[in-house]
Amino acid sequence: MKEKQRGKASVIFQHPPFIIAAASVVGKKEGEGPLGQYFDQIEADSMLGKKTWEEAESELQTRAATLAIEKSGLKKEEIRYYFGGDLLAQLIATTFGVMNLEFPMFGIYGACSTMGEAMGLGSMVVEGGFADHVIVTASSHFASAEKQFRFPLEYGNQRPYSATWTVTGCGSVILSAGHGKNPLAKIAGVTTGKIVDMAFKDSMNMGAAMAMAALDTILTNFRDLAVDETYYDKIVTGDLGQIGRRLLLDYLVKAGYDIESRYMDCGIEIFRDETQDTHAGGSGCGCSASVLCAYLLPKIREGVWKRVLFVPTGALLSTVSYNEGKSVPGIAHAVILETCDGEQEG
Amino acid sequence: MKEKQRGKASVIFQHPPFIIAAASVVGKKEGEGPLGQYFDQIEADSMLGKKTWEEAESELQTRAATLAIEKSGLKKEEIRYYFGGDLLAQLIATTFGVMNLEFPMFGIYGACSTMGEAMGLGSMVVEGGFADHVIVTASSHFASAEKQFRFPLEYGNQRPYSATWTVTGCGSVILSAGHGKNPLAKIAGVTTGKIVDMAFKDSMNMGAAMAMAALDTILTNFRDLAVDETYYDKIVTGDLGQIGRRLLLDYLVKAGYDIESRYMDCGIEIFRDETQDTHAGGSGCGCSASVLCAYLLPKIREGVWKRVLFVPTGALLSTVSYNEGKSVPGIAHAVILETCDGEQEG
Repeated sequence: MKEKQRGKASVIFQHPPFIIAAASVVGKKEGEGPLGQYFDQIEADSMLGKKTWEEAESELQTRAATLAIEKSGLKKEEIRYYFGGDLLAQLIATTFGVMNLEFPMFGIYGACSTMGEAMGLGSMVVEGGFADHVIVTASSHFASAEKQFRFPLEYGNQRPYSATWTVTGCGSVILSAGHGKNPLAKIAGVTTGKIVDMAFKDSMNMGAAMAMAALDTILTNFRDLAVDETYYDKIVTGDLGQIGRRLLLDYLVKAGYDIESRYMDCGIEIFRDETQDTHAGGSGCGCSASVLCAYLLPKIREGVWKRVLFVPTGALLSTVSYNEGKSVPGIAHAVILETCDGEQEG
Repeated sequence: MKEKQRGKASVIFQHPPFIIAAASVVGKKEGEGPLGQYFDQIEADSMLGKKTWEEAESELQTRAATLAIEKSGLKKEEIRYYFGGDLLAQLIATTFGVMNLEFPMFGIYGACSTMGEAMGLGSMVVEGGFADHVIVTASSHFASAEKQFRFPLEYGNQRPYSATWTVTGCGSVILSAGHGKNPLAKIAGVTTGKIVDMAFKDSMNMGAAMAMAALDTILTNFRDLAVDETYYDKIVTGDLGQIGRRLLLDYLVKAGYDIESRYMDCGIEIFRDETQDTHAGGSGCGCSASVLCAYLLPKIREGVWKRVLFVPTGALLSTVSYNEGKSVPGIAHAVILETCDGEQEG
């Protein structure tokens, strides 16, 4: 079955799984950003009616997953596995968010690249014949992330311009072996990232920490598939922000690829720094996941972009390792999304 | 391709992946326990020559993975993906352990059930044709876990008899599409667990928190495959310990299955409580992973047990959610391991 394997780290599917539904739920600030009109739900209460930030993030997952299932037209019982993750220690936002849904469950951790990692595994599980439908979800919450990784919000600490703002949001997609009535996209293949460590030690500049991982995954994808940047209508990273963006583009030029005209970063798109005080951009698992569901997939369905390389990026930061003087390594996972042709009708 | 799917949550492989190599590295205390003679490496220095407990745990992963690759006779480049996880926030033991190995990488979190979750995904990826060989690794370290979940070791806090002792250890297996020269076992199928919450709130009695998850996964396995306990020569849980063991056995009897004569728990096997002061038993991702590699797989290869249901069990504990008054939910993932017949040569 080697024909599915390409090069060192890529897979091209013989029977591409379809994304038959997607849902996004975000917070107030994300709703006020440039993509506000595209999200399914904008929640004005940052606590989502719960008692803690962590419970609020769990509620994001419950809502996004429930809405994605509803949109798919499937019964919950028809969906075989839940692939989910978040940024918090021991994935508690996911645990308590998915618990009442009672799915057989795979917990995934890839920092902010989680949506890419989980979609990669989920699509292999579907294409391998192990499930007809799976649900893939990733979330983040500004306040639970600040608490986990930085300072209590009450400190009102200042953030350097290189810092990103963790998105309060969640994206959830249903991957299926069949295309259903009106699929959003098909997953043509995936490129799995490796950990890239640049001995980078500034936890307030995650974009730089992740840029080299994005570079590595994108170059691996080009090499494995024997293509260049023109193969894609759009190349979209997760949350590099302004600084990571510049680094990635510059290093790609050095490697012989000028992707700038077709490049986009979910973290840069989701906020308007001039008025929203978000500095380098948005970040968090929920950033690329919610922008995928709200903005990228509809554009792919409409054929505005026919082939997109979606590359969620993760900074493998932990307060424990960081305080012990360790670096912040990066990882990025790429998913090849294509417009469905002639498969819209069921 | 539905023929691979069984019932709600199980998969039976048409071309079972093989475990062609396995390696275990453990600490001094584990080496002094009843299974001491079976481990590949026993490290006398609990720091493994490193500066922090977390680095020590990373070193366990590096060593076990490197040894498993060596035993397999494969070149590192022939192994396509690394599936790995640990108990620490943001999987830092795995991140820094696997970094220099440069594998395309899937980070997995299932608490102490991680080895089961990762073997499930790894075997689907191999059987689906997406890789010829993958490596699956899970680790834990007593001191990094105490620091993460409980008290500084220097406090010398007392532990109730219901508490388990986190194993310092790591197990690593190579899963392959072909059986190689002398496979340890084949993976006939897997049953993926769901999160089971009993609203249980005693973080010093993880066995009880996990017992109901083990119960759910074992019953799901029986139901999905239309079998009973006699289908297996051995049913082996990860780290229920003495209290979780009793609960599981009693509830299974209530459900109509008496598995006691064929039951084993890795956590109970690995330590000798009378002299080692470990109380209810061993725990941690590294407990089931190292016992699998050192003890279970050789017994399966020899045909002492021809079919084993291996059920790593996880308690989804986090200090954040726990201190916010949340329960400790459990999850368990089952892997069906079988003796290879007539496949040893070739």
